[in-house]
Amino acid sequence: MIFAPMRFRHNVLELLDQRKLPLQEKWLRCRNSKDVYWAIKNMVVRGAPAIGIVGGYGLYLGIARYRGSRKGFFGLLRKQAVYLKGARPTGVNLRNVIDEIVKGTGKSKDRNISILKRLVLRQAQAAHHLDEKLCRRMGAHGAKLLRSGDTVLTHCNAGGLATSGFGTALGVFYAAKGQGKKIAVFADETRPLLQGARLTAWELTKSKIPCTLICDNMAACMMKAGRIDAVIVGADRIAANGDTANKIGTYNLAVLARAHRIPFYIAAPVTTFDFSIRNGKGIPIEYRDPQEVTEGLGKRIAPRRVKVLNPAFDVTPHLLITSFITEAGVLKKPFRRSFLKLRKK
Amino acid sequence: MIFAPMRFRHNVLELLDQRKLPLQEKWLRCRNSKDVYWAIKNMVVRGAPAIGIVGGYGLYLGIARYRGSRKGFFGLLRKQAVYLKGARPTGVNLRNVIDEIVKGTGKSKDRNISILKRLVLRQAQAAHHLDEKLCRRMGAHGAKLLRSGDTVLTHCNAGGLATSGFGTALGVFYAAKGQGKKIAVFADETRPLLQGARLTAWELTKSKIPCTLICDNMAACMMKAGRIDAVIVGADRIAANGDTANKIGTYNLAVLARAHRIPFYIAAPVTTFDFSIRNGKGIPIEYRDPQEVTEGLGKRIAPRRVKVLNPAFDVTPHLLITSFITEAGVLKKPFRRSFLKLRKK
Repeated sequence: MIFAPMRFRHNVLELLDQRKLPLQEKWLRCRNSKDVYWAIKNMVVRGAPAIGIVGGYGLYLGIARYRGSRKGFFGLLRKQAVYLKGARPTGVNLRNVIDEIVKGTGKSKDRNISILKRLVLRQAQAAHHLDEKLCRRMGAHGAKLLRSGDTVLTHCNAGGLATSGFGTALGVFYAAKGQGKKIAVFADETRPLLQGARLTAWELTKSKIPCTLICDNMAACMMKAGRIDAVIVGADRIAANGDTANKIGTYNLAVLARAHRIPFYIAAPVTTFDFSIRNGKGIPIEYRDPQEVTEGLGKRIAPRRVKVLNPAFDVTPHLLITSFITEAGVLKKPFRRSFLKLRKK
Repeated sequence: MIFAPMRFRHNVLELLDQRKLPLQEKWLRCRNSKDVYWAIKNMVVRGAPAIGIVGGYGLYLGIARYRGSRKGFFGLLRKQAVYLKGARPTGVNLRNVIDEIVKGTGKSKDRNISILKRLVLRQAQAAHHLDEKLCRRMGAHGAKLLRSGDTVLTHCNAGGLATSGFGTALGVFYAAKGQGKKIAVFADETRPLLQGARLTAWELTKSKIPCTLICDNMAACMMKAGRIDAVIVGADRIAANGDTANKIGTYNLAVLARAHRIPFYIAAPVTTFDFSIRNGKGIPIEYRDPQEVTEGLGKRIAPRRVKVLNPAFDVTPHLLITSFITEAGVLKKPFRRSFLKLRKK
């Protein structure tokens, strides 16, 4: 139950091309930071934690061939950091990992460029390994919330493919299964890019977790029929008050879950929290190309002149969230108080 | 602003093939009731009022070549009626139109088979013309609910293509435009078969009504942003208490509209009411082929072994409906009382 979408070796970052799943399992090779920027922007790799990890390696690739002064090195490092952080604006992990590496490297007094480069790589690898640990811990905490026999609805793909390999929301299902619990999953297909149909259904089928695929607009009807016991989704950025940005359609599910009295959980590592932002209004929302809606499946589905809005994310107000599943435990209301222990770290 | 999807001449029923819109405008010719059954089942024509009209012509085509006794004629008429009503179970108009024609023909004492046949055709044509009148009256009533500058969200296609040509929900927009009001529309794409993207966007673009296409899971986010002033959708069957079956995703919108305090209207002719059914639980819901979800766009989007649910309709409880827009006026709460005047007709 590990679906690591990235591997780094011999100064090449290999990415499982998630645009081609589930029909093809192809790996794409990134040799410089431009390749990595392109891969993030075009969603070869997606999911906030995975983007963060890949961004770290991208930063290393951006400076790996540098020869010159220490000052020049740090100039390039900062330039590459700004460049890579611009690839996708909503998820906070990309920014966090890159800023941490720049900061950590700046602390070194070393003048040897090779040593500085190695320091960048080590930190990127550390962020990668950290995510593996966090996801497993998060899964163990989250699994306690589920009873054997539960059916859980999830949206988009917050699985192995969205992280270093174990997943956030799907990690909870993998952990529950590991504990011997029988969990069934309903997966929203997640328009426009169908990460639920393409990626979540693929991961769960491979993991032998019973999975039923539905269109996004069927969730309400399934909830009314009593077929959903809980909703668990991932997150791209969580503000200081608990407002959460995640894949478009998440807020929709949160409203529905509340109306049907179904618990609504966010599963996310502490790295997804952004305490510099007071509430959801401060989270930048990426709008993507209308063609993802009108031609995303290879065939045009709408008249040429029609206007299209394509926000990639929405913000769910903290009031609609039952609790947060993190590696530091399950955080309950009031969130301002339960978040305190994260801030202290 | 008339998009009549059917025309009948020289004993041939021509149907605009709605599966091919908006890329191609092709007409399909039906010469017997089998052709009509197939066209309804496979959604060449769709929308409860349009299916009713087409069913009427289908019934005529089913007996048009009959030669024999009066008794044999009525036997065939009833057999064809049962056959055609089975094409799609949820919408009530198909059943209503066909039952009315069988009943109306049964009243004739005539022994001349040609005259009886002509009687069937006349009633089918009458149902067709009646829908034209009803939709325009409905539009006029509904338009009063909208103010110039309003933006209205609609789901699926309750337009000309779903009726004799003027539409139910979209008829309200056409009528409002005719009254000089500026109305903008948000159209849900409406998975799995994308009637919003393919048909509603096409009709509205042709009618020069500003239209913005969104994915179904974006509606909540647009409501929260204050961009939606009202929701108007059509209906496939309305129970005696006001519970309404309509395209899957309608119930979703009704819950969201309530949560955001946005009025939620159903626009439907009185022929869509089924007073023989007490509440929504009695409405049969059609489940369609999973391939509509996994391969509906010409390309497979999910792993082969994944289970899929594909209900074509959902039921919105009357409590979530602000009012019904009908040709008999806008019916407000309490519905049991306001429905009385329909029953008396």
